[in-house]
Amino acid sequence: MKKKPITIALDGTGGDRKSTQSIVRALNFAFVLYPALKVIVYGPGQLEADLLRKGVDPKRFEFRSAPQGIPQDEEPRRVLEGYRRAAMRQALESVKEGESQGMVSSGGTGPLVVLARHILGCPGHLRPALCARMPCGPGRFSLMLDLGANSSCTAHDLYDFARLGSAACSLTMGITEPRLAVLNVGREQGKGNPRVREARDLICADKNLYSDGFIEADRIFSGEADVIVTDGFTGNVALKAAEGVARIFNHATGLRRLFSKMMRPDWLVPWQYNGSILLGVDGVVVKSHASAGEEALAVAMVEAARYAEASAAEGIREILHLA
Amino acid sequence: MKKKPITIALDGTGGDRKSTQSIVRALNFAFVLYPALKVIVYGPGQLEADLLRKGVDPKRFEFRSAPQGIPQDEEPRRVLEGYRRAAMRQALESVKEGESQGMVSSGGTGPLVVLARHILGCPGHLRPALCARMPCGPGRFSLMLDLGANSSCTAHDLYDFARLGSAACSLTMGITEPRLAVLNVGREQGKGNPRVREARDLICADKNLYSDGFIEADRIFSGEADVIVTDGFTGNVALKAAEGVARIFNHATGLRRLFSKMMRPDWLVPWQYNGSILLGVDGVVVKSHASAGEEALAVAMVEAARYAEASAAEGIREILHLA
Repeated sequence: MKKKPITIALDGTGGDRKSTQSIVRALNFAFVLYPALKVIVYGPGQLEADLLRKGVDPKRFEFRSAPQGIPQDEEPRRVLEGYRRAAMRQALESVKEGESQGMVSSGGTGPLVVLARHILGCPGHLRPALCARMPCGPGRFSLMLDLGANSSCTAHDLYDFARLGSAACSLTMGITEPRLAVLNVGREQGKGNPRVREARDLICADKNLYSDGFIEADRIFSGEADVIVTDGFTGNVALKAAEGVARIFNHATGLRRLFSKMMRPDWLVPWQYNGSILLGVDGVVVKSHASAGEEALAVAMVEAARYAEASAAEGIREILHLA
Repeated sequence: MKKKPITIALDGTGGDRKSTQSIVRALNFAFVLYPALKVIVYGPGQLEADLLRKGVDPKRFEFRSAPQGIPQDEEPRRVLEGYRRAAMRQALESVKEGESQGMVSSGGTGPLVVLARHILGCPGHLRPALCARMPCGPGRFSLMLDLGANSSCTAHDLYDFARLGSAACSLTMGITEPRLAVLNVGREQGKGNPRVREARDLICADKNLYSDGFIEADRIFSGEADVIVTDGFTGNVALKAAEGVARIFNHATGLRRLFSKMMRPDWLVPWQYNGSILLGVDGVVVKSHASAGEEALAVAMVEAARYAEASAAEGIREILHLA
C-alpha cells in the first residue's frame, strides 16, 4: 500500500554536529527508510550548497535559509522575544501553518518546549512532556514520559503525562487499554514519595486509564507496562544511566568489540531509538538527541512522519476530549 | 601484612533468599576473600543447623538465635516498638555494644535506616544516606549517594550527603581532595531544578569541599567525579536503570551468551559490586541487595569489614568535626 506523502520540517541548526555533512547523510537515509517523506530544511546557506552538491534528491526536499540557531540554555523570555528568524522557530511555524505535518529539532530542550507551547498551543492546558519508545524485545516497545521537558513536576503533572501517554499508545501502537505504571523505587503500595503515590491514586481514580501501579527502573526495558510515567528529571536520569551502561558494552575494543557485536540483541542497536515526541502541544514536534549520529537523526525524522501519518495531535485531542 | 581480626554481625533473616543454603555459601566465600573476618550470625535455628552440617569453620563464626524478620514495608513506629528480638535489631545492637565492628543486612531499607538511626545515632544530625562504589574501569570507582535511604530530600540534605561522601572517599579511597558532582539533567549552570542548583551552591560555598559542578547520568560509570551526590529517589532509579540494561546484556542465551561472557569488561562482573554503606550513622551498617546472590552477599560482608578496618564511623566524625 502506498503511503500518502508526509512533509516534515527539519531544524538544520541544532545539535552537536560540527558539519552539515551529517545532515546530508541523515536525509538520504531517511528518504530510504520512509519513501513517502518530504523534508523542508531550515538552516545556513552552507547546508543548501552541500545538499545540492551531494546530490540529495531535489524532488524530496526544499531549502529555506535560516542560519540563526538558539543557544540551548537561552532564557525562555529571550527565546520568545529574540530569534524571530531562527530555524527552530520557522520549522515550528511551518507546522502551525499546516505546510508541514511535523518538525524535528536537535536543538536545546528548553527553547524547543518554550517555542512549541507558544506557537502551537496546549489543548486542554495539559502539561507537555517528552515521550519516547523504550525497546523491550524484538519489535516490542513501551512508551516512557517525561524525559526532560519539565525539571519540576507535581503529582497532577504526572497524571497529565499518564493521559497523554495512554492516548499516544492507543493511537500509534494500537493498544486499546494501555497498562500505565508510575516509575518508583519499589512496587509496594507505600513506597516512594508523596508525589508518586498521589499520581498513582489520580490514575487509579480515572476510569479511562488502566493503572498497573508502580514499576522499578530495572524493569523499564521489560515490557511489563505499556506506558511508564515519571517526572522529567527522573526520566532523563534513568534514560541516560541506561545509555551509559549500554555504551560501556558497545564501546569494547579489539576482540571484545567483535564479541560485543555478536552478542548484542538486534533489537538493542542504539540508533534505532532516537526521537522523543513532545506530547501535549498541538502538532507533531520531535526532539532528536543532540549528539545523535546521522542514522539516529534519520530515525527521528521517520518517527515524526509516523506520528504525523497517525494524525497524532488530532487523535490525542479527540481521545482526551480536549478543546 | 596480617590484618587485624574484624567481627561483622550478619542479619540472617532478610532478603529474597528462599533457603539458608546460600548464606552458608556466602560465609564460606567471604572467609576466603577476607581471611581476618569473623561473623556473628543472627538467624533462625535452621540456619545454625545448616552452618554446622555444611562444615563452615566453627572458629570463624558464632551463631545467635534470632528467628524474627521484619517485613520490608513495615511502618517506622512498629519497627521501633515491635521486633525487639529481630535479627536486624540484634545485629545493630551488637555494633552499638562494640562486640561487632559492623553489620550487614539484606532486609528492607526502610526498617534498616529507622533502626540504625535509633540504635546507633547520627553524629551532627546529618541525614544518613546509602552510598555505594560505582565501577568506572579496572580497579577504579566513584562513590554515589543517596541510593534510597531517603525518598524526599532537600538541597541541604544533598549538602549533607556531599560532606559524608567526601569524608568516606578520603578515608577509604585515599583521595585527599575528592571531586564532588551533583547528578543533574545537564552540566550547564542553569540546568535542572532549584534543589540541585542550591545543593551545588552549598557545596561550592564550603571551602572543605571540592565541587565539580553537575554530572549527567550517562557519566556515572566514567570516573569523572569521585563522589556523585543525588537524592535517594533519583539515585535508586539511576542505579536500577543501569542494572536493567546490564541484565539484558548479561542474560543473553545460546551462542550470544558465550559472546556476552567474552566481551564483558572484567571490571563489570556484577556480583563484585554489592553492599551500600549507610553513611551518617555512628557505626558501620551495610545494606546488601535483597536479591543478591551468594557471591554478592559475601562481597557485602567484605565491604563492611573494609569500612570497619578503616574505622570509617570514627574517621568521618573526625574529618567533619562532629560531636
